[in-house]
Amino acid sequence: MTDQVLAHALDRQRHLVDALKALAACPSVGADPAMAQGMEDARRIIEARLDAMGFKDRQRLTPATRTGQPAIFAQRQDAPGKPTILVYAHYDVQPPDPMDEWQSPAFEPEERDGRIYGRGVSDDKGPMLIALEALAAFVAVEGKLPVNVKLLIEGEEETGSPSLPGILDRHRALLAADAVLSADGARWRPDLLAVNVGSRGNAGFEIRVRTAGPDLHSGRYGGIVANPLHVLSTLVAGLHHPDGRIAAAGFYDGVAEPTAAERDGLDAIPFSDPGFFTPLSAQPHGEAGYSTLERLWMRPTLDVNGMWGGYTGAGSKTVIPHEAFAKLTMRLVPGQDPEAAKQAVIAHLEALLPAHATLEVSGDTGATGAYTLPPDHPLLAAAIAALRHTTGQTPLRVRIGASLPLTEIVDRVLGLDTVMFSFALSDENFHAPNEFFRVSSIAEGLAAWVQILRQIALSQVADFAPYRRA
Amino acid sequence: MTDQVLAHALDRQRHLVDALKALAACPSVGADPAMAQGMEDARRIIEARLDAMGFKDRQRLTPATRTGQPAIFAQRQDAPGKPTILVYAHYDVQPPDPMDEWQSPAFEPEERDGRIYGRGVSDDKGPMLIALEALAAFVAVEGKLPVNVKLLIEGEEETGSPSLPGILDRHRALLAADAVLSADGARWRPDLLAVNVGSRGNAGFEIRVRTAGPDLHSGRYGGIVANPLHVLSTLVAGLHHPDGRIAAAGFYDGVAEPTAAERDGLDAIPFSDPGFFTPLSAQPHGEAGYSTLERLWMRPTLDVNGMWGGYTGAGSKTVIPHEAFAKLTMRLVPGQDPEAAKQAVIAHLEALLPAHATLEVSGDTGATGAYTLPPDHPLLAAAIAALRHTTGQTPLRVRIGASLPLTEIVDRVLGLDTVMFSFALSDENFHAPNEFFRVSSIAEGLAAWVQILRQIALSQVADFAPYRRA
Repeated sequence: MTDQVLAHALDRQRHLVDALKALAACPSVGADPAMAQGMEDARRIIEARLDAMGFKDRQRLTPATRTGQPAIFAQRQDAPGKPTILVYAHYDVQPPDPMDEWQSPAFEPEERDGRIYGRGVSDDKGPMLIALEALAAFVAVEGKLPVNVKLLIEGEEETGSPSLPGILDRHRALLAADAVLSADGARWRPDLLAVNVGSRGNAGFEIRVRTAGPDLHSGRYGGIVANPLHVLSTLVAGLHHPDGRIAAAGFYDGVAEPTAAERDGLDAIPFSDPGFFTPLSAQPHGEAGYSTLERLWMRPTLDVNGMWGGYTGAGSKTVIPHEAFAKLTMRLVPGQDPEAAKQAVIAHLEALLPAHATLEVSGDTGATGAYTLPPDHPLLAAAIAALRHTTGQTPLRVRIGASLPLTEIVDRVLGLDTVMFSFALSDENFHAPNEFFRVSSIAEGLAAWVQILRQIALSQVADFAPYRRA
Repeated sequence: MTDQVLAHALDRQRHLVDALKALAACPSVGADPAMAQGMEDARRIIEARLDAMGFKDRQRLTPATRTGQPAIFAQRQDAPGKPTILVYAHYDVQPPDPMDEWQSPAFEPEERDGRIYGRGVSDDKGPMLIALEALAAFVAVEGKLPVNVKLLIEGEEETGSPSLPGILDRHRALLAADAVLSADGARWRPDLLAVNVGSRGNAGFEIRVRTAGPDLHSGRYGGIVANPLHVLSTLVAGLHHPDGRIAAAGFYDGVAEPTAAERDGLDAIPFSDPGFFTPLSAQPHGEAGYSTLERLWMRPTLDVNGMWGGYTGAGSKTVIPHEAFAKLTMRLVPGQDPEAAKQAVIAHLEALLPAHATLEVSGDTGATGAYTLPPDHPLLAAAIAALRHTTGQTPLRVRIGASLPLTEIVDRVLGLDTVMFSFALSDENFHAPNEFFRVSSIAEGLAAWVQILRQIALSQVADFAPYRRA
């Protein structure tokens, strides 16, 4: 029996591609105040689509700070007695630089070889539109949704969702739901059917090392003053032991070693280092004594994401700078307290700092704990059933090395669990040049979203009650 | 008895200040192709002044490469039988960044509290104009110069004078002289009368560390791939031993320890670490076992002048970059072979490089040896006599920690010695924001230049013969 809703959605795939191109043409870089218009343009496109889909109560949930980005809310209460699902996505994107490494301009989406290229197409505009168009197909064919749906489309995901806890807290009644279904989060691999059951947390900050008042001439002062780039390099080189273990005392507090059962579970996942790393022109590298999947899902990390100081333009300049900078982030696993982990790293840097330099810490990017989904959660069961229905296969349960502040924030503020149900794939260069989204993911995603909504409609509000903690 | 030439020059000091402001308003950054017009504007101002001073044979000596900057030549052969002095200066300047640290715009010269602020006012446009206006005063008052003078005003000093050897080589007859008198080089300290008798050499290059093909998401790949910023930091941290000694094997080959006599000579120079470092908000720092002056004049150095990679904009970006960069330069002392020292550092970096990263070396900035002026050279004697005459004090003989490619190149190509006779002072923030030139240096400089020309006129060509090596 043909699913008329799905047939309608599939018929309109080209419309979805066009809509994605229009949305991805908006430079909605939330981190960059110069791109405020791109954020506004993206909001307006989404809002117009929600209105056309008959969503009600559309409104912008604004952050308490004037500089934050509003989240878009709308709802349809079409299914009295059925569960209410809060569907999450985000409209902000990563900064596009380095610009010169894009084969087509970051904000001029281009379709090539079955892929749409552009900043944000995979993270998270393509997956967002799949969710919205699956919902639209129900409205178009059946006149209503099979469950109650509230939409929350955030504008600060790429900057760590600093305003989201406050927005959730101030709008508890409006956002009341039984569980959260996220269109963000990305499938792990094209060749592996899987559902995510957990994510790493994160925390970050920026440091500035100073050694003098002014920049100094490297001839007239070379050899007699400290160079902050040397000091900063010593700090960064001292973050890890030679075996890849993070050197900050207390950083691993609360981190459990993988159990034998967990190792067995990882071993069951088809994975080969060469198959994974060769396409990246990279080699496996990390903490000694752990496999790649253990490193990625069960071990915390500490990375410098950017570092700079002195003369970085064309040609040479014989300067000893007086300051140098680095941006650091860490990925955290269950058991770690994000704030304690961050303080451990800061204390370690201060201990490494020589007497002839000063260290300032700023630019706190927030701290998010790791998240684990209860293994028997009804929304997880619906996701697994939907994927089994649309693919004929049982998905593996996997974790994600990245952070989804959403899951931790929703858990902490609303006491709800989140199922990640994105149809992005993890090789699609998000956070890098030449981000792309596979056109083939659209049909897969529409089918899965139509089916998961039907699966949820088979459950009752009471099924979710044991998992609601607020 | 009043020196009418000096009186004339001193009467015109305000004219010199105005001329300096006009010249320093030209953004003559030779390293930046976007500033070509600033280079051309500077050349035209200088050429117009030389024509007005009655200099002959004015011409541009062009580099063999199309991208190089021409040097300006002109001469007056007014004193048959007297020595011919090649007067050197340079019209190019350092890049002005970081722009936001300038209190007044880098290329809008401004006079404040007896100082003129602007990029290049001290290095080398102010000192250049002192030399030119002293010569102009002779022409105006006496109708001629007391010695034969050839001018060579270079446009590539700040980029390591890559074309100068070729220019000297191709124009040997035109540039034939008995010695070189440089308006570049800077006096060491405001409170100490001194002449420079030597400079350190330099060499430099850029490195790129790569660990992967594309930039990668720090969540999805964090902990399983190498971070090139970590690798680069390890390389930079490994350049020096903890005691400040450079770690590259062979780097110190040929470097002599200071002799007891040299240490006594340094001890005779009034110098206090707190008096020197406190105004810089810096602490003395360098190779263990050596005093500040030994570190600055007799010991080689290795500095990172710029370093960058990953996301360096506003906000945060959770990226693991695939490449990271650093610009390195070294300062070299007598006995070191510049090319060998550079290769020692490159070999050291390659030895430090882990197997999961690649290293590329590029951007060779040329290699210049250290230079020492013969202690009994007649032009040095003239300089000492001139300073003794104008100040009543005997100048100390000091070295300079910076490099003057000119001295080494002139020595190597033309077989001539160079006396550095600049009236810049070493605290004037050249190569840094807020470069300035003291207005009071103008009168001192004019008096000294008028007097050194008179002193040279007392000598004969034959006095220089023993020192000419070509």
